[in-house]
Amino acid sequence: MLEMKVKTVALIKDGSFSVLLADQEEKNFLPIMVGPFEAQAIALPLQGKAVPRPMTHDLLRSVCEKLGAEVKKTVICDITDGTFYAELYLKKGDEELILDSRPSDAIALALRCEAPIFIGPHLIEFTYDSEDIVFSERPDEI
Amino acid sequence: MLEMKVKTVALIKDGSFSVLLADQEEKNFLPIMVGPFEAQAIALPLQGKAVPRPMTHDLLRSVCEKLGAEVKKTVICDITDGTFYAELYLKKGDEELILDSRPSDAIALALRCEAPIFIGPHLIEFTYDSEDIVFSERPDEI
Repeated sequence: MLEMKVKTVALIKDGSFSVLLADQEEKNFLPIMVGPFEAQAIALPLQGKAVPRPMTHDLLRSVCEKLGAEVKKTVICDITDGTFYAELYLKKGDEELILDSRPSDAIALALRCEAPIFIGPHLIEFTYDSEDIVFSERPDEI
Repeated sequence: MLEMKVKTVALIKDGSFSVLLADQEEKNFLPIMVGPFEAQAIALPLQGKAVPRPMTHDLLRSVCEKLGAEVKKTVICDITDGTFYAELYLKKGDEELILDSRPSDAIALALRCEAPIFIGPHLIEFTYDSEDIVFSERPDEI
């Protein structure tokens, strides 16, 4: 598995959003298309912006904390027909729990819990080299 | 406290969304303005529509279930400067946990867990009588 970070949330010209994951050396990039709400849920912790009321993923983090579970990691594990799949790994005592999740939810929660984000080994072929990625001037302004 | 049900999710002419809560006799109504994503998160279980991948509140329900907690109820407990506040009541063994939540998240989760929705006693003055409510022909098509 390859550990990734969220490089940016990008607004595409056609109005759609993409979360751009990058490995630690920023050599391999994996763009994942997400909806506008999901983009905001990821961009907020990335930008360190505070919100007056808990957003849905803040509530999700609170539920984990209150129920004594730790978000250990999230894994973008598969792709089928252009749809990425993710798994959320929680730890509660000695127990490991794995939950099926959309990548956007898994990433939004991982960022709030400072949990690492991985991609499965067979997703590396879906990544782009750094030379193929062009950044706009204000990539994470959404 | 007054137990409410979700009567409908309405698209207002200005493009905003409102969740209309009603008491069991449909005499008192409480509209709560929500965002478009929140409206969708409430409308989906209301319409019984299945989704191919778990939405954020489906994941929230899964997290509660996997961690052995039951969603007992949700209470729209307060309003300050036009913003409604809610509390989510979870039960884990003998322990009752109360979490601060936006009403939209609390309602979206309650619907998925078939948990009752209440409004606090001092919010009854914010309700509308049934005579003051006009329904459009297709109120919950969003």
